[in-house]
Amino acid sequence: MKTARLEQLQTALTQAGLDAVAINPGPTLTYLTGVSFHLMERPIVLLVLRDQEPVLVLPEFEMTKAARIPFKVNAFTYGENPAEWGGVFKKAVMSLGLDGKKIGVEPRQMRLLEFNHVRGGAPGAEFPDATEALASLRLRKDESEIGAMRHAVKVAQAALEAILPSINVGATEREIANALSMELLKNGSDAELPFAPIVCAGPNSADPHATPSDRRIERGDLLLVDWGAATDGYISDLTRTFAVGEVEAEWKKIAQIVFEANRAGCAAGRPGVPCASVDKAARAVIEQAGYGQYFTHRTGHGIGMEGHEEPYMRGDNMRMLYPGMAYTVEPGIYLAGRGGVRIEDNVVVTKSGVEVLSDMPRELRLVG
Amino acid sequence: MKTARLEQLQTALTQAGLDAVAINPGPTLTYLTGVSFHLMERPIVLLVLRDQEPVLVLPEFEMTKAARIPFKVNAFTYGENPAEWGGVFKKAVMSLGLDGKKIGVEPRQMRLLEFNHVRGGAPGAEFPDATEALASLRLRKDESEIGAMRHAVKVAQAALEAILPSINVGATEREIANALSMELLKNGSDAELPFAPIVCAGPNSADPHATPSDRRIERGDLLLVDWGAATDGYISDLTRTFAVGEVEAEWKKIAQIVFEANRAGCAAGRPGVPCASVDKAARAVIEQAGYGQYFTHRTGHGIGMEGHEEPYMRGDNMRMLYPGMAYTVEPGIYLAGRGGVRIEDNVVVTKSGVEVLSDMPRELRLVG
Repeated sequence: MKTARLEQLQTALTQAGLDAVAINPGPTLTYLTGVSFHLMERPIVLLVLRDQEPVLVLPEFEMTKAARIPFKVNAFTYGENPAEWGGVFKKAVMSLGLDGKKIGVEPRQMRLLEFNHVRGGAPGAEFPDATEALASLRLRKDESEIGAMRHAVKVAQAALEAILPSINVGATEREIANALSMELLKNGSDAELPFAPIVCAGPNSADPHATPSDRRIERGDLLLVDWGAATDGYISDLTRTFAVGEVEAEWKKIAQIVFEANRAGCAAGRPGVPCASVDKAARAVIEQAGYGQYFTHRTGHGIGMEGHEEPYMRGDNMRMLYPGMAYTVEPGIYLAGRGGVRIEDNVVVTKSGVEVLSDMPRELRLVG
Repeated sequence: MKTARLEQLQTALTQAGLDAVAINPGPTLTYLTGVSFHLMERPIVLLVLRDQEPVLVLPEFEMTKAARIPFKVNAFTYGENPAEWGGVFKKAVMSLGLDGKKIGVEPRQMRLLEFNHVRGGAPGAEFPDATEALASLRLRKDESEIGAMRHAVKVAQAALEAILPSINVGATEREIANALSMELLKNGSDAELPFAPIVCAGPNSADPHATPSDRRIERGDLLLVDWGAATDGYISDLTRTFAVGEVEAEWKKIAQIVFEANRAGCAAGRPGVPCASVDKAARAVIEQAGYGQYFTHRTGHGIGMEGHEEPYMRGDNMRMLYPGMAYTVEPGIYLAGRGGVRIEDNVVVTKSGVEVLSDMPRELRLVG
């Protein structure tokens, strides 16, 4: 009893020269099993080999959930006492004869907690980075995945549009963020938002990863909103920047530059072009305008089950785009202590270019 | 320039015989710095030594955030190209002369991504488990932390009470979960909920870690709600079980048993008593009633900045309780394929016993 995704993974293992892969809770495990396990203090690992029944090590009380996995797994379960976990893992890993073999891992997802337990049953194994082999599975989104992402964009846009009229001078960043979160759920986002909305105004908008604060928005502020929804486990991740009343002339100029950089970045994507071209197209606009040093991050990241995944839109990334890849285009200009503008869209590569999933106005709209 | 928490950590390092500790984004880093860094594809690590200025390795564009850390750090920053990260980490770690030393790590939090980078600059170092040394910092909650937890309980209780009257037969688990999430935000929870509410009914309630589904609640179902709020970064984590109309007589009996187990577990906590006593007190009630094998998990876990942290209420845990420790008491009985009942409260150890932070009715209330 196998699924198409399990077979694809096993093929990818062979191609990558890996004997097995160890997967802990996270997007890859959810993609493969359709079941969402918690990343918690109790280690859970699925071991997939090229041509054997996968082995799953998990707490006994999670077996109800494991029963929903659509392929056959050999389950090794443990109780609540951590002292017994090592023994169960050792037995599970040894049952597969993996010592001395190559067991791929995802360093971004695998914690020392799970890693040490797996290694306990295969002390002589190598643990190469399997990120690339596993990413290949999820890089090409199928029609149902793209449909979920389109829907996640619609939900996000509807939610922000719904709260815009009620954003007034004097509201705190946190209040606006909370109102937006509520509206995301009301519009049909999954209960677990992909990330808490970033709402930051004035000088706070100069921090690309700001946390909403109790600062009240003031006339003359830039108001940056970076938000997204999740539907059927797939996410959207958008950014729009607003003007709270009249803002300095330089910000209007900057907003126009970022707008053009966003448009250039979106237009640059198509099959056979490297990720670097998308970054370069957006960055060139900002550099030519003299703000190159203030665009401090890459132009975008892959998007799907995760907010940040392959492919990354960096100037040095020669990975070629192909149909079904999905990513963000999010140039920004940040002036420390003063503010920042970012405009972020989500695109999917088609046969001849890209489909831009988001269509909310990108110009510097007035709020407040 | 040091803070009390940094000094406590440095003292803990000395006591644990560690030369340093490597901390990646998560509760410990937030506790120590007051700044919340993202756990993402870009590795961030704070290295704290006993008596040197801490070193922070992070992306250049996160420096705005790093500037808010209330003690002096020596920052090593990197750009967007992962190929350069190894070199920056190596330089940072080597600047501290840590090779051959003992660098503590938290296996539950540290990923291979960060670990491999740290080890690159100290290939001959040992990396002992520092969970216990670090946990000691956060185990004793101070008055402001307890205040935040009290508030998080209030917010959570108010939110569930607000939606109870609108729960009707025919609503899906997911709809109820979304309504609850919205109400949590409306009542003042931080935008990032501590976890997505678990709302599960009928047979789904037999899975202690269920994900809300599109199943509609029916007359005769048990409806289990496990939910919480976050305020000022501190969380609540509660569970109540409801009857959708008339339920089988056995469930009424089971609900009463779980109620008594919860009461016994809450009453058992006080300074100088081991965690095991709390577990045993709750478990004894369920075992004496003949349902011992259906109480498949420990009685509780620590609570604070995280949903699951030290101290754990397990029958084998001889860790002694002392004032300021906070944890959940959450006995349950689960009959696979049929349903489950859990009642979860949050308590803080006082000088003479515990303060139960939650006071929402615990009996099997009717909804629908």
